[in-house]
Amino acid sequence: MAKVTTMFVSDNQSGVAPEVVEALAAAAQKSHGSYGGDDLTAELTARFRDIFETDLAVFTVPTGTAANALALSAVAPSYGAVLCTADAHVMADECGAIENATGGARLEVPEAGPKLTAVVIDRHLSLPRDVHVVQPAAITIAQATERGLAYQPAEIEALGEVARRHAVHFHMDGARFANAVAALNAAPADITWRAGVDTLSFGGTKNGCFAAEAVIVFNLDLARQIEFRRKQRGHLFSKNWFVSAQFLASLTDDRWLKWAANANAQAASLAEEIETSGLGRLIWPVEANEIFVEIAETKLRALTDAGITLSEWPDTTLPVGSSLPAGAKLVRLVTSFSTSKADVEQFIQLVATIGSEGMT
Amino acid sequence: MAKVTTMFVSDNQSGVAPEVVEALAAAAQKSHGSYGGDDLTAELTARFRDIFETDLAVFTVPTGTAANALALSAVAPSYGAVLCTADAHVMADECGAIENATGGARLEVPEAGPKLTAVVIDRHLSLPRDVHVVQPAAITIAQATERGLAYQPAEIEALGEVARRHAVHFHMDGARFANAVAALNAAPADITWRAGVDTLSFGGTKNGCFAAEAVIVFNLDLARQIEFRRKQRGHLFSKNWFVSAQFLASLTDDRWLKWAANANAQAASLAEEIETSGLGRLIWPVEANEIFVEIAETKLRALTDAGITLSEWPDTTLPVGSSLPAGAKLVRLVTSFSTSKADVEQFIQLVATIGSEGMT
Amino acid sequence: MAKVTTMFVSDNQSGVAPEVVEALAAAAQKSHGSYGGDDLTAELTARFRDIFETDLAVFTVPTGTAANALALSAVAPSYGAVLCTADAHVMADECGAIENATGGARLEVPEAGPKLTAVVIDRHLSLPRDVHVVQPAAITIAQATERGLAYQPAEIEALGEVARRHAVHFHMDGARFANAVAALNAAPADITWRAGVDTLSFGGTKNGCFAAEAVIVFNLDLARQIEFRRKQRGHLFSKNWFVSAQFLASLTDDRWLKWAANANAQAASLAEEIETSGLGRLIWPVEANEIFVEIAETKLRALTDAGITLSEWPDTTLPVGSSLPAGAKLVRLVTSFSTSKADVEQFIQLVATIGSEGMT
Amino acid sequence: MAKVTTMFVSDNQSGVAPEVVEALAAAAQKSHGSYGGDDLTAELTARFRDIFETDLAVFTVPTGTAANALALSAVAPSYGAVLCTADAHVMADECGAIENATGGARLEVPEAGPKLTAVVIDRHLSLPRDVHVVQPAAITIAQATERGLAYQPAEIEALGEVARRHAVHFHMDGARFANAVAALNAAPADITWRAGVDTLSFGGTKNGCFAAEAVIVFNLDLARQIEFRRKQRGHLFSKNWFVSAQFLASLTDDRWLKWAANANAQAASLAEEIETSGLGRLIWPVEANEIFVEIAETKLRALTDAGITLSEWPDTTLPVGSSLPAGAKLVRLVTSFSTSKADVEQFIQLVATIGSEGMT
Repeated sequence: MAKVTTMFVSDNQSGVAPEVVEALAAAAQKSHGSYGGDDLTAELTARFRDIFETDLAVFTVPTGTAANALALSAVAPSYGAVLCTADAHVMADECGAIENATGGARLEVPEAGPKLTAVVIDRHLSLPRDVHVVQPAAITIAQATERGLAYQPAEIEALGEVARRHAVHFHMDGARFANAVAALNAAPADITWRAGVDTLSFGGTKNGCFAAEAVIVFNLDLARQIEFRRKQRGHLFSKNWFVSAQFLASLTDDRWLKWAANANAQAASLAEEIETSGLGRLIWPVEANEIFVEIAETKLRALTDAGITLSEWPDTTLPVGSSLPAGAKLVRLVTSFSTSKADVEQFIQLVATIGSEGMT
Repeated sequence: MAKVTTMFVSDNQSGVAPEVVEALAAAAQKSHGSYGGDDLTAELTARFRDIFETDLAVFTVPTGTAANALALSAVAPSYGAVLCTADAHVMADECGAIENATGGARLEVPEAGPKLTAVVIDRHLSLPRDVHVVQPAAITIAQATERGLAYQPAEIEALGEVARRHAVHFHMDGARFANAVAALNAAPADITWRAGVDTLSFGGTKNGCFAAEAVIVFNLDLARQIEFRRKQRGHLFSKNWFVSAQFLASLTDDRWLKWAANANAQAASLAEEIETSGLGRLIWPVEANEIFVEIAETKLRALTDAGITLSEWPDTTLPVGSSLPAGAKLVRLVTSFSTSKADVEQFIQLVATIGSEGMT
Repeated sequence: MAKVTTMFVSDNQSGVAPEVVEALAAAAQKSHGSYGGDDLTAELTARFRDIFETDLAVFTVPTGTAANALALSAVAPSYGAVLCTADAHVMADECGAIENATGGARLEVPEAGPKLTAVVIDRHLSLPRDVHVVQPAAITIAQATERGLAYQPAEIEALGEVARRHAVHFHMDGARFANAVAALNAAPADITWRAGVDTLSFGGTKNGCFAAEAVIVFNLDLARQIEFRRKQRGHLFSKNWFVSAQFLASLTDDRWLKWAANANAQAASLAEEIETSGLGRLIWPVEANEIFVEIAETKLRALTDAGITLSEWPDTTLPVGSSLPAGAKLVRLVTSFSTSKADVEQFIQLVATIGSEGMT
Repeated sequence: MAKVTTMFVSDNQSGVAPEVVEALAAAAQKSHGSYGGDDLTAELTARFRDIFETDLAVFTVPTGTAANALALSAVAPSYGAVLCTADAHVMADECGAIENATGGARLEVPEAGPKLTAVVIDRHLSLPRDVHVVQPAAITIAQATERGLAYQPAEIEALGEVARRHAVHFHMDGARFANAVAALNAAPADITWRAGVDTLSFGGTKNGCFAAEAVIVFNLDLARQIEFRRKQRGHLFSKNWFVSAQFLASLTDDRWLKWAANANAQAASLAEEIETSGLGRLIWPVEANEIFVEIAETKLRALTDAGITLSEWPDTTLPVGSSLPAGAKLVRLVTSFSTSKADVEQFIQLVATIGSEGMT
């Protein structure tokens, strides 16, 4: 029953896919060039070029925070502003990484809500700015978003057009990029560089790897400086092949998309059961692998007693203008590459058992 | 024969120990708390406390550069000076990581030579400094050094006493700490905190791991800020257990010391053969796993033709006042946890075959 | 009539008091020690100690932005948060100076409105914060505020108590400190260090000087590092006596308070006339030397035609929840040490002439 | 006799020229646009364009350190290297300002000696650099140098050609630019932008002003970012006209060159007398307004007893390979715009009186 306890708390808590473990074990037996001068890293770049159908540069890094900070440090000067949502990982979960990496750039939140929208961003970027205020340098969006939504291709294109027109860079935080691609069934190129994205933080860690993150650079003018910034900030692995091996295992045979599709499907299934069972009310459409649920405190407690701890979430992430009714809580459930149909069923059975006594 | 090619180029180029691979594969099958809130990370701290016989804090990070920069950023203000040797990794190989992480602190080289010495450092720290110059904040030494030397316990104690007297911090870059401990047969505590060391970059990557580095904090006053700085600079792994699992595998049954002892022994054996065979002249005593050799260009070329590429090294790292004779080069050979007696013998046999034609 | 044009636009646009000019001219004839090692600078410190009735350290700097950034850089680490109002100078007018000087600290706005209030700040500082978010390091308030309000002694004491309890520093931006002291008729000590303020940016430039700003450090533990940070950031004048001479002239015979009292009195008088004449509606109480007025666009245009350009102000600085009626604008008028009764009368006469035609 | 005491200690210790005081007093009586939006600042830009015979941008700042750091922060990334002499002000006297302003760039000293030379710099910039080391971004020279030498036009052109070829920027620290121009009798354009200089720190403070420094930007691509960096680092005066007024007074009727020429002439005269009188030995040619003298300790003491304190200087600034004989000291004498023939004569007379008893 122990496994149940933290079920669905985060895709960071899953283990690692066997294919990734095997690839790593195989690579471990050989000698490799250091600091990225190895065959696996060279192969990884080729693989990403295939996936994105274009020339690009790949900079593997240890963490998603490192990827976001590295990408944005290449485009935002110390007096720059980076536009994001209030709930963006760069704003809410990275302990000031962007500000530090850029020497002081400021994160600006031009609008409430879980997505940046082209109309508002256009208006925000059109405001006059004198020498006394920070100067817009970049917009950054998460795909999928922190609320489990996927930006539609048209939304990204519109933002890309605004960014280009105002001469600011366009960064995408793709810690859950695989989930977004799987959800949209879109070509990776169509929701990135073809839509105006300059740099992408491509995440593998939440999708079956140990630690595999990369900055994918479409705007090759930025590549040279990112190389040095990566080293200077301690993000260049000496045995870089160990990141490349993980990524290669996950990118082979479209595993990264299959794993993400599984996570998405289990999330959809779980969400449906949550609604059907009357356990709680879905706050946002479930478009990727995250589910946000308004749930009665009494039920939450009953679930805990039954062995499932759900992860409470701050109500500041509710849709603008809404709030929790008395006696209710907000919780987040996340599925992953390893979530199985059995996991969902086990959860639903547990919910059924608390059905009567858990009701208010 | 392919394997021979880059033999002895760097301990970064070795693969990974099977015990580490196995531990990682085992851990990969389970769910774990994220961001270090996992059992393996808790166990790692306990293990390091045992090894160093004291309370301490452990901050795992991705790279040695990250470890050094993180440790020094906690003690050197932007107007600080950090004293080191000219060949220190922080000076010569980290692309300005220390300067960046501290917001501008300067690396100062108070003396030529491969080690900092207490008498010179004491004198340097006694110089008057007004508001126009950077202020000493820390000294940092590498153990083992970049020239493959081990600081003797008495040398470290003397530096520790000077640091304490001048109220500057004392950091040790232990990318090859295992090799130093194995070489000195000293208690880890005796050559670190008991000798006045405040923080230690403890390296596992060069010693059988994929990517396992940590800042060991003996001066617990520094721990809190290092926690936040680590996160802010993108060094906190979400699946932190994967670093802990590697370290635990390497620290179990004193493997880390056995692996390092093997590297040291093979280096000693290799060095002896190099001298005996007349291949070249040893530049520094071989106290750990690095060998620096003055070698005739003709022999170097003959070796290359025979399939072994040795790594040329800048002559700026020669002892002060010495230089290479005409027609000679400086090369570095490094052994590792995985270097076998057979490897050394294979090398020596190759040397023998080029014996006559390689001679000038 | 030219002078009228930009009347009341800013206290930064006034000239300089004759007493300051004379003091500077006198000092200019002598040789002085450089970098603050001069008699005038020594005398300035003594003078400030008298005024604030305590030991303190004085760091003269070129600008108010330099003062704020220097003071906060001494207390906020790169992963710190500094709490301020949305309209604070550090947030709205310093081009990211605080973020840059601290290496990345973030400005947080815990509440809407023109003042920080102890109850809200206490609640904000009581929120749990994990390693993923910036850590509160300081609160900063402007005295007088950007809306021309003066914090009452009890308000400052309450904030000081909260700061102390949560172990964060307390900084005061006193670009218009003189106006606040004159308005409150309070002892400078009572509204600074006795109320818990650690550092004060003391402004002279808006109050009769050329360029005279200083960080007054009450918490002497902070003094040493501020000395070096000032130099490192290019804020230490070689002929520092020229700032000291200005300050000394303004602090002699309570001139600084008389000048500020004049500015306040003319502002009060101007505000009264604006209301009486029906020119516009006062938005905030006029407690110092700034007046914010809601005015009909037609009147604003008529004034411009008559030769007075008033300074339009963003409606984002209106009280929370309020907005401008159709056809109205927000303007700011500022008086200074040099504003005379005649200036106010001239303005009012102009207003009278546009009276009828300017009315909607 | 008091005035004698610190005679010739530094050009920072002189007072201010009457013409500058008068201009400031006149400007003080008027209202001016703030933050550089004033007529005097506009006029200053026009004046500098005349003097340098080209389009350029002018950024006034408070101090020479601010000017150097601002100029270099616009061209050196955090992973950059800035090449300078060991005795450069940026290296020896600015408390790490460059490192801080650039986010970590490193100052590199490619050669011993008081000047950078094109041949050595070319060789240094030709060295291969991989990702592990900082990347050259700029060279910076002082004109006149810290040893009182003037770079000849041909020397500057040669450095400019090297900088251009290696795609690094070329900065000139002109804290004593006036002295160099007066010494060389060269067109300012010829020793700056025509020779490849991108940015110049133009100093007025040591040459008759209170505090008047500026970054002159010849490479206009750099101008925009310097504007924001200046504000962000607290260097933009609200009453910026007060710097412009000082500069304008000093630039009118070639006063800046006359004052510098006087300083140079008095230095030459003083140097000659020092040699003739046997007081000491000149260490460097006296090309500007600084004199470095090797002097017997006994004489130095006798001078002190007679009322003149000369400024001792570190022997690390002696020519490479030379050292002081036993019983000797190195002193520096500096003349200024206000040094008179009478000052020199008074000094020489004093020297004469100690003549016999001061001799060893």
